[in-house]
Amino acid sequence: MPHVTIQYTANLDPEAKMGVLCASLAEVICAQRDGDGRRVFPIGGTRVMAYPAFAHAVADGAPDRAFVYLNVRIAPGRAARLVAATGEALMAAVRSHFAALFATRPLGITLQIDEGAPAFDAKHSNLHPLFTGK
Amino acid sequence: MPHVTIQYTANLDPEAKMGVLCASLAEVICAQRDGDGRRVFPIGGTRVMAYPAFAHAVADGAPDRAFVYLNVRIAPGRAARLVAATGEALMAAVRSHFAALFATRPLGITLQIDEGAPAFDAKHSNLHPLFTGK
Amino acid sequence: MPHVTIQYTANLDPEAKMGVLCASLAEVICAQRDGDGRRVFPIGGTRVMAYPAFAHAVADGAPDRAFVYLNVRIAPGRAARLVAATGEALMAAVRSHFAALFATRPLGITLQIDEGAPAFDAKHSNLHPLFTGK
Repeated sequence: MPHVTIQYTANLDPEAKMGVLCASLAEVICAQRDGDGRRVFPIGGTRVMAYPAFAHAVADGAPDRAFVYLNVRIAPGRAARLVAATGEALMAAVRSHFAALFATRPLGITLQIDEGAPAFDAKHSNLHPLFTGK
Repeated sequence: MPHVTIQYTANLDPEAKMGVLCASLAEVICAQRDGDGRRVFPIGGTRVMAYPAFAHAVADGAPDRAFVYLNVRIAPGRAARLVAATGEALMAAVRSHFAALFATRPLGITLQIDEGAPAFDAKHSNLHPLFTGK
Repeated sequence: MPHVTIQYTANLDPEAKMGVLCASLAEVICAQRDGDGRRVFPIGGTRVMAYPAFAHAVADGAPDRAFVYLNVRIAPGRAARLVAATGEALMAAVRSHFAALFATRPLGITLQIDEGAPAFDAKHSNLHPLFTGK
């Protein structure tokens, strides 16, 4: 983790450029550092996935309404100020990414970070070793 | 919010008419009122998105089994009776929508409302001003 | 329930054989028994759905990075050892399923079980009666 899921109304494609947004958010996550300059999140556990909805209704249901919901799941235990800083940095990237679209159409954006502890948690990865010492 | 995600088995398409269901559920949400006649949820924060699964297995895995799972995420803090009334109204709309399909095939439907508090929450929207005073 | 959602990077298709994995995980869930030989989960409430992402970025964002995230939601209240045994059995099936892919490419796999209690929960199903006494 972090695990980022982007759910959005398909009326934003192709202008939404979701591949670019995914790469941008992964970069923001990997750039986070604590007060001692250490990484807040492991590179190898970072993933961002985007899903356009097959069908949707937003607000009053008029066809031009659009929405982007970003859910970030992280493991519990990090300092609240680091979580907040991560959220602010991600939202800044999201706002920047959608600035042109936001100026021209009805659009809602919500970003939430959840840190709920799972009842069971198992990992199997060969990604982490790729970034040892980085 | 509310944020409604519908996950369903693709063997229900096209009879599932998911666009119609999304519109119906957004309407139900926007129609909720408290004891003083005030809106329970903001129009501009309401969104419903539907996602057919690319692959699935339901129950014993026989190919005709179908499932619809509706997850409604709301902000915490509303009175329990308003949350329950919203859930009942949504489920009534869902049952009505799927009544014909339910009568003719194996189908499970589950609707859950979650009100977990996020560790970080940011919004950026030009939808809310469209409905000021409504 | 259990409700299993598999989110994965589409660069794993078609080798990911997600239909096979869904069937395998549903079978694992239905095979769980407690100390008295009783089912841990109802057959009729079991569903597994898989969703390839439309766009993604994993780790440093290089195009060959792949990820599979499995989220299992169950109702709260089961003994911790039964939940852990279920998680271990599911993860064993997942590791086996992806063994060949894991040996040949960068791949992260995470499986989590959540047992959060919803604020509202409604079910409407004709699946359960199909398995009465089984």
